[in-house]
Amino acid sequence: MPWPRMVFMWLAPLLRLMGMLLILLGWFMAAPLVLLIQESHPDVWAFGLSMGLTIGLGLVMAFLGARAPFILTGRQMFMITTLSWLMMSAFASLPMMLGSTHLSITDAWFETVSGITTTGSTVISGLDTLSHGILLWRGILQWLGGIGIIVMGMAILPFLQVGGMRLFQTESSDWSEKALPRSGKVAKAIGKVYVGLTAVCGFSYWLAGMNPFDALVHSLTTVATGGFANYDASMGHFADTPMILWISSFFMVLGSLPFLLYVQLIQRNWKPFWKDSQVRALLKLLALTILALTIYLCEVRGWYWFEALTHATFNVISVVSTSGYASSDYNDWGSFSVMVFFYIMFIGGCSGSTSGGFKIFRLQLAAILMSNQLKSLLHPRGVFSQRFNGRPVPDDVIRSMVAFAFFFFFTIASLALALSLMGLDFLTSLSSAVSAVANVGPALGHLIGPADNFELLPDAAKWMLSFGMILGRLEIVTFMILFTRAFWRS
Amino acid sequence: MPWPRMVFMWLAPLLRLMGMLLILLGWFMAAPLVLLIQESHPDVWAFGLSMGLTIGLGLVMAFLGARAPFILTGRQMFMITTLSWLMMSAFASLPMMLGSTHLSITDAWFETVSGITTTGSTVISGLDTLSHGILLWRGILQWLGGIGIIVMGMAILPFLQVGGMRLFQTESSDWSEKALPRSGKVAKAIGKVYVGLTAVCGFSYWLAGMNPFDALVHSLTTVATGGFANYDASMGHFADTPMILWISSFFMVLGSLPFLLYVQLIQRNWKPFWKDSQVRALLKLLALTILALTIYLCEVRGWYWFEALTHATFNVISVVSTSGYASSDYNDWGSFSVMVFFYIMFIGGCSGSTSGGFKIFRLQLAAILMSNQLKSLLHPRGVFSQRFNGRPVPDDVIRSMVAFAFFFFFTIASLALALSLMGLDFLTSLSSAVSAVANVGPALGHLIGPADNFELLPDAAKWMLSFGMILGRLEIVTFMILFTRAFWRS
Ligand SMILES: [K+]
Ligand SMILES: [K+]
Repeated sequence: MPWPRMVFMWLAPLLRLMGMLLILLGWFMAAPLVLLIQESHPDVWAFGLSMGLTIGLGLVMAFLGARAPFILTGRQMFMITTLSWLMMSAFASLPMMLGSTHLSITDAWFETVSGITTTGSTVISGLDTLSHGILLWRGILQWLGGIGIIVMGMAILPFLQVGGMRLFQTESSDWSEKALPRSGKVAKAIGKVYVGLTAVCGFSYWLAGMNPFDALVHSLTTVATGGFANYDASMGHFADTPMILWISSFFMVLGSLPFLLYVQLIQRNWKPFWKDSQVRALLKLLALTILALTIYLCEVRGWYWFEALTHATFNVISVVSTSGYASSDYNDWGSFSVMVFFYIMFIGGCSGSTSGGFKIFRLQLAAILMSNQLKSLLHPRGVFSQRFNGRPVPDDVIRSMVAFAFFFFFTIASLALALSLMGLDFLTSLSSAVSAVANVGPALGHLIGPADNFELLPDAAKWMLSFGMILGRLEIVTFMILFTRAFWRS
Repeated sequence: MPWPRMVFMWLAPLLRLMGMLLILLGWFMAAPLVLLIQESHPDVWAFGLSMGLTIGLGLVMAFLGARAPFILTGRQMFMITTLSWLMMSAFASLPMMLGSTHLSITDAWFETVSGITTTGSTVISGLDTLSHGILLWRGILQWLGGIGIIVMGMAILPFLQVGGMRLFQTESSDWSEKALPRSGKVAKAIGKVYVGLTAVCGFSYWLAGMNPFDALVHSLTTVATGGFANYDASMGHFADTPMILWISSFFMVLGSLPFLLYVQLIQRNWKPFWKDSQVRALLKLLALTILALTIYLCEVRGWYWFEALTHATFNVISVVSTSGYASSDYNDWGSFSVMVFFYIMFIGGCSGSTSGGFKIFRLQLAAILMSNQLKSLLHPRGVFSQRFNGRPVPDDVIRSMVAFAFFFFFTIASLALALSLMGLDFLTSLSSAVSAVANVGPALGHLIGPADNFELLPDAAKWMLSFGMILGRLEIVTFMILFTRAFWRS
């Protein structure tokens, strides 16, 4: 075969898949478009043009790609995973640039990447004055990103054995022809759960007093643990209605649990849900952190207990689930609180959920490793059980979890160093690096903290942070591998 | 055997070894005592009394312990290692409490632990006015701590397989009867090297302009990478004589290299020294950091290049070697510098040296792990070589390095959280926790930074930090294991 043909054969499946994704993205632009037409808003043409471009290019790519057999190797999957996120971000940012937001390329890219990776940091101040089209589009971006992350975490990363995720290799991550029909069913069920949860969340918001539009957009960004809000004050806009904060907390937790468990719940199989060690660990961790913070706020800072409990619950869940909404500026809650929020930024939710961060199961594997190490010091020749969720954990899973941990911390450290070179202070550099890579959203400190936005950052810092968000979303190694010599050999 | 007898048989070797250590410590008190007698200083009686108590109790313990056979199990070694550091600190703090320093129990404990672990944080302001006896004693504490760490790192920790140190299990860590004579020879040679380096360092300081007493004390604390200075301004007192800073830098680097290599150098075996991958990595890392910081100080902060090079070299080496001297307040060198100093606090020198921290070889093992992980993503069934210093690295060494890494970071994080509860700010809490556990000395920020001292900290924070220093010195797991159920079973 001549080499241009070989290159085409290799690229064709990529073109086909990515073309289909673009078409999907384009269709979702119809929703804000309809809204804008109803309102006769000038942003109509911006969305119309973006939609045409996106669907048009998607059709061309899908058509070209269809002219070769569709077989994917591991290498191509790594490539597709990274390229898809980049390409989706690029096209999704078109309305932000063309519309009445008039964002620069840097700002539009930052806002879109922050949306689609469900990070939720924003460069827009004056959200309250934006067109409904743009606000809805921001919500849709996070909602699409959220389901994208679930699919990637369940079907792609375990297959690629990234960062210890092989632990979650089930039939639904089996790509053989025999298993595909079943995988398809699981995927459909998960899609239904995602839509269902969003609907129930939105309905609850509406019942609690949000207007229908706010209820819609905030339900999209809650279930996706995204964190974009329609107001500069984030969820602080609704702080007078504690019920809204409690509803939001509840659905953010649901968004951080493994979605596969909901499918089993629907099939009336309750046991896996209650027995799941990741779920239990996450809930314990949340309870403990909320309790500690509530006591601190009451005893040391003199808050009323219901106020302390509400805000501690909401903001802790918001950060651990990597949503990143804020109901109040926790920078001013004392140095203990700042330290607590800094730490819980790293953690993240469960695998197979919409949340980011280090992830609960990796913390659990680390705890197993540490406890076995203490045992082996006393019994150097002993062999100790490594069990997770009742099943033995292979050594290579531990090894890739550990490698992921090192990549995760080195990425954060490098990003923070680069940001400090821009003159950002210690707390801001470090916390915004963690926040980006863990896809949380707000940083700590008074420049880009929970009460501020990222508008005033230097452009270079915005590019670095959006790069960090993508790295985090791709569990770092999926991206890094593209830059190894071994990847390009042969 | 009746159980009181069994307990005695188990404790006897501990008593004997620790008694001998106490006698040794007591004898070293003679040096400041002689100095104080010459000066007719009222602290004479404080040192005399401490010396009497220490040697007296040591004799009793050694005598009691000698009444049972001297056989050590792993458990007893873990016990002895922890107890020795605690006991030595307690007795070495006597002169600090009884003497004209009039330190409280908290302050005397903090200062002594900080000395003997070679951390070098001080609670004493007005060092310039202290009696020569106390200043010399501070120097001796660090010097004894330094050789203690070398011996522990070469002979005890590799044997106990702590934190991946099994990598350095050589004949000199073989405790069998056959190997003991050879180990004795190595130990003696290392002692000679230690004394020799200290002498050359002191002589160089004197030649460069220090008075004989300062040259003596600073040489004791330089080779031990301890960092206690005779002046409140630390080595900044000598900043007008760059030559002193350069000499100090040179000997701090020597103090962070594996001392076994010097013994081989003396035997005219140059190859291991030049080929040692740990040494090469440390030197590369130092060169890179110094270069980056010098360029930053010149280009961004407008320093003169020689001033920038001198202070960057001195302070970077001081922190990486975990000495902790300061020649200037690097808190005011801009946010990039603060971030750089924060990161290099973690690193530490080579194993088998006097320095603390995470240690270079662990960073190298982590790099191997990360690069192999990227390879294994492409070739899931591949087996990749793990070589360190030309020899294969067993899997269990990697595993214990990793467990150490988790323990190290969790210890630092917990300590910082506890400190933030005392109301210390983010930078102070986090950096003082790192500084204590890595045995560096000064923290960052303007409360206990390189230009300040620890006097004004709350007492609880002083106890926490001194606990962190001991944990760090014991490579954490050596201490933690005493609190596992498995340790006390049977
Ligand atoms: K988020
Ligand atoms: K030190």
